[in-house]
Amino acid sequence: MTTPTTAELHEAGLAEAVTRLSTASGFSDATLIADAPDAIRLLAGIPDEEALPIDAVARAYERVRANRSRAAGAFQYSNSQGIPELREWIAAREGVAPERILVTTGGAHGLSLAVQALIPQDSLVAVDNPIWPLFLRYLELKTTNILPIPLQHDGLDVDALEAELRAGKRISGLYTVPDFHNPTQGSLTIEKRQRIVELADHYGFWFIADNPYREIYFGEKPLSIEAFHESSNTVHVNTFSKTLGPGLRLGWIVLPERVTEGFVRLRNRNDSQTSTLTQTIIAELLNAEPNFFDENLGAARKRYRNRAETLVHALDEQLPGVFDAVVPEGGYFLWARLRDDAVDWRELYRAAVQHGVSYQPGAFFASAPGTDAERYLRFAYGDNSESRLEQAVSRLAIAFEGLTL
Amino acid sequence: MTTPTTAELHEAGLAEAVTRLSTASGFSDATLIADAPDAIRLLAGIPDEEALPIDAVARAYERVRANRSRAAGAFQYSNSQGIPELREWIAAREGVAPERILVTTGGAHGLSLAVQALIPQDSLVAVDNPIWPLFLRYLELKTTNILPIPLQHDGLDVDALEAELRAGKRISGLYTVPDFHNPTQGSLTIEKRQRIVELADHYGFWFIADNPYREIYFGEKPLSIEAFHESSNTVHVNTFSKTLGPGLRLGWIVLPERVTEGFVRLRNRNDSQTSTLTQTIIAELLNAEPNFFDENLGAARKRYRNRAETLVHALDEQLPGVFDAVVPEGGYFLWARLRDDAVDWRELYRAAVQHGVSYQPGAFFASAPGTDAERYLRFAYGDNSESRLEQAVSRLAIAFEGLTL
Repeated sequence: MTTPTTAELHEAGLAEAVTRLSTASGFSDATLIADAPDAIRLLAGIPDEEALPIDAVARAYERVRANRSRAAGAFQYSNSQGIPELREWIAAREGVAPERILVTTGGAHGLSLAVQALIPQDSLVAVDNPIWPLFLRYLELKTTNILPIPLQHDGLDVDALEAELRAGKRISGLYTVPDFHNPTQGSLTIEKRQRIVELADHYGFWFIADNPYREIYFGEKPLSIEAFHESSNTVHVNTFSKTLGPGLRLGWIVLPERVTEGFVRLRNRNDSQTSTLTQTIIAELLNAEPNFFDENLGAARKRYRNRAETLVHALDEQLPGVFDAVVPEGGYFLWARLRDDAVDWRELYRAAVQHGVSYQPGAFFASAPGTDAERYLRFAYGDNSESRLEQAVSRLAIAFEGLTL
Repeated sequence: MTTPTTAELHEAGLAEAVTRLSTASGFSDATLIADAPDAIRLLAGIPDEEALPIDAVARAYERVRANRSRAAGAFQYSNSQGIPELREWIAAREGVAPERILVTTGGAHGLSLAVQALIPQDSLVAVDNPIWPLFLRYLELKTTNILPIPLQHDGLDVDALEAELRAGKRISGLYTVPDFHNPTQGSLTIEKRQRIVELADHYGFWFIADNPYREIYFGEKPLSIEAFHESSNTVHVNTFSKTLGPGLRLGWIVLPERVTEGFVRLRNRNDSQTSTLTQTIIAELLNAEPNFFDENLGAARKRYRNRAETLVHALDEQLPGVFDAVVPEGGYFLWARLRDDAVDWRELYRAAVQHGVSYQPGAFFASAPGTDAERYLRFAYGDNSESRLEQAVSRLAIAFEGLTL
């Protein structure tokens, strides 16, 4: 071994930590396409403006401010695990002990912590295919070595996962979205949930369950997550981003008891703690107006459902026979398949953007070759009114007409 | 090489990332000592309640809320580097281009990012001795291999650093607090600032300048940081924690251009972005009430100065000859030396806590043996009124009388 020169050492840190991280491509570049000023963007999983607690936050802060010492506390340091009032509300909703809740600076932060805490350097991690591609960026903090697992109409193909494990593949972790999968809409059956945690126990891997859309259901409540909460190998990552707004940067992880202290220790080294101010305001809102969250969300669910239905209906009406698309049971996304394999998805995407409508092409979601993801279009409907969605489909129809088939 | 068993792989992630992180000891344990309910705690570098913008935040949010689409924007995703309105204000104050500012979720987050981005695994890093001990915890994310450098009345002993480098020590980074050092009070001279960046250029290491107390000056403005801003090897970490309150979790780093994009890429993988809501509110406050920050801080500086003087005066009066203590020129801490080496600092500390006054014993700040840090007491005066400080010294005097000398 030779001692590194000073210049080598100097650049080594950057190289080690930063240079190996990929630059934005595909998924996030889509948002950078210079679309028309009046473009309708069906791009991101973000809540409708009406669902944001703009006035409720003002009311809550006024109540906090009425007690001077409480208000002062909101501007001071707080516990790395999160303030008790917020952890208790979350714990009650999740049905676990508050000691198992770690408040995070948003769902992405929860995923980043899970990767940092649980995944050994360069180990193999099983992930969705297609996948919400930003997870792969968090995963890059530890590894780019992935085992893609196909998705079915009811979520991850657990048989395929088990076959890989039986064939000798050794994974340190598994990532999927149990409810209203992004991008493929489906939710895991109860049986699949149970089997995943059993496989995690049997083969010894961590299950990172990413569940931001769980509260955005349109009909029946989503299926039980008890299996996750009873598993000592599952971390359940969630967030207020899809219910109260991503700009809050407020999320949480439900942790098995045996890793809670370690996660807190690690998170303490990342950003010390989540804003005491936002935690205090949201805890005040949730606790002092106990109906607010469900009433606000109830109204939002109806809007999202109407939008999803409007979108599917408009596709059926204006582009008959072009897509296989079913109204989602929840979440923010329609995952619509082009029926005709002769359609060039790149050409369609360019034409759509040119005609003032943008969406995420399915190809951006493939975590590996071998799926038909590129035959899909992901439409986000959460933050567009019904009339805008109809207009978007009209534009898409015009774009489609101009294609060379 | 043998393939790891599943159980080994399973625990390897935790072991790699979490288990090697130290548990709390010394510094933070001090805050856990069961002191009396009426204890006076001279423990932490936190702002006085009067300095917190409790009402100003309400005003700013009302103005944000008056524009519905702007208010909605505050609840949505934003750029990982920080919102432009906030970066521009910070950049103007720092005297650099806004492109070089990265908004962080507090100063600790800035330090964590600097360690993650710049320090190679297990490399040697030069650090203060005595040091603000929490930096060593962030550093643990990459290394526990430190080169302790002594402190002088005017900050880091740059001769000692240079001697180590000349003798062949190769460091990947240097950490110090340039202004109103925590815990030792001093500030680097202009010459020392210049020499540090020259050494960084010459020997090829990153200088992590941690400057949270820079705005808390009592007399003349602190010395120029131009040398840091002109250096392509220096990252200058700062925060609103000591001026507007740590509960905001709002800080920033001034980065050399060549690493900005890499830092943004890495931070995107940590927590995606700092709360858009807190960024929007504080940017509105700073921009729409352009005198607020300086007027609020001006009043706070006077209070802190009076408190520092009161504390030193009370020590002189009530414990004459016991301490070497000079009124700090800024910051939140008095670093007072016990004159008599026969005084057992542990016994004094126990007696003080028993008599209802707590402080941080100097021993907690040693990054390595070989200093006289344990002969010091660090008193934090920022969040205690003058009468409380006098009372604290009275209690300390009683505790001192009871010692077996």
